[in-house]
Amino acid sequence: MQELEHFTEEDLKQLPSRYRAHFINSVTGYKSANLIGTQDENANANLAIFNSVVHIGSHPALLGFILRPLTVPRHTYSNIKATKTFTVNHIGSRFIEQAHQTAASYDDQQDEFEEVNLKKMYLDDFKAPYVEASMVKMGCTYVNEYPIAENGTVMIIGRIEHIYIAPGIQHADGWLQLDQIETAVTLGIDGYALPKVLDRFSYAQPGQAPKSILNETKK
Amino acid sequence: MQELEHFTEEDLKQLPSRYRAHFINSVTGYKSANLIGTQDENANANLAIFNSVVHIGSHPALLGFILRPLTVPRHTYSNIKATKTFTVNHIGSRFIEQAHQTAASYDDQQDEFEEVNLKKMYLDDFKAPYVEASMVKMGCTYVNEYPIAENGTVMIIGRIEHIYIAPGIQHADGWLQLDQIETAVTLGIDGYALPKVLDRFSYAQPGQAPKSILNETKK
Repeated sequence: MQELEHFTEEDLKQLPSRYRAHFINSVTGYKSANLIGTQDENANANLAIFNSVVHIGSHPALLGFILRPLTVPRHTYSNIKATKTFTVNHIGSRFIEQAHQTAASYDDQQDEFEEVNLKKMYLDDFKAPYVEASMVKMGCTYVNEYPIAENGTVMIIGRIEHIYIAPGIQHADGWLQLDQIETAVTLGIDGYALPKVLDRFSYAQPGQAPKSILNETKK
Repeated sequence: MQELEHFTEEDLKQLPSRYRAHFINSVTGYKSANLIGTQDENANANLAIFNSVVHIGSHPALLGFILRPLTVPRHTYSNIKATKTFTVNHIGSRFIEQAHQTAASYDDQQDEFEEVNLKKMYLDDFKAPYVEASMVKMGCTYVNEYPIAENGTVMIIGRIEHIYIAPGIQHADGWLQLDQIETAVTLGIDGYALPKVLDRFSYAQPGQAPKSILNETKK
């Protein structure tokens, strides 16, 4: 087998800061690619890219995401605290460039939806704006936050109140086949990739080899 | 545009529990696919699949992952608490079936590495076992844990002490091109997908369109 390259914690500390950031952000693997939409109390909209959305629970339906340290103003955070609502919108492969551009430091009065040319929409009287182009969107309510003492990041927990999905992507058992709508993933700070589904396997049990269930759950 | 299907929180509550779990686990997008290796104080090894590894920080290099409620014994958790160490190993597309099988409820004395036929290895005197087949591996030290009050899950924070990567995948600025080693992603509880890198973009700045940097960072 090919010899792997080894980096110790000490090696990592010696790396230039930008190099280390690219390395450590990509070494933990691909991440989910979502745009989080919010607005302040004066209806100034904000849209920001996040790669840290994780599943917390199904019943109640909860998700979490990590906000970077609050040492500079974070519109997403202040808007969520003010209005208690936010939307989570899948990034499709055909608008990764626009999604990436939401990371630019726009000021309070600038609306990222307009600046990056992604149309916003409001649905079912929900306060926060959705991304029209997203084929999966969620409307969430702020539930709690957990400050990560180690480096000042914060994990936000939200309850999923609304889900909108493109027709035809849901299998008979509830699972969503996201490659049919070309949902992207992120890789590191600035990389984007497009996954293709390989398979789904039966519930794992000792002494039984998993079997493929991808085709049998198709509607 | 195609009309999206709408589910309210009330609709979600009415769904059969298994259907809801498949739905909510896949609606937040693809997730990172990693195997976490641990052992107890008697050197009984454990290996378990996790889709919740997220980036917490680069300096110091920190990662986080979510453990399900501790209401049933969790070997990963008890081993990490006992030895303060764990490894994080990328799941390659050619061993997704074996990785999935680590989720079966093996008892204390059963070694998942052996049960699923993934060879373990020890590196540089680190206590926790690595997955030999993984092309990216990390040796981590337990730093802290954050109990999520909303549903009893726990976020574990680890410091990255060792990184091992396949030669040739690191770009000139530190970024890892993971499609060269076929790192997989998960989709929901039981789905696996293989991403292909689309592009990397320059640092986002107001008034400037992002430009592709994928080719210029190649070594």
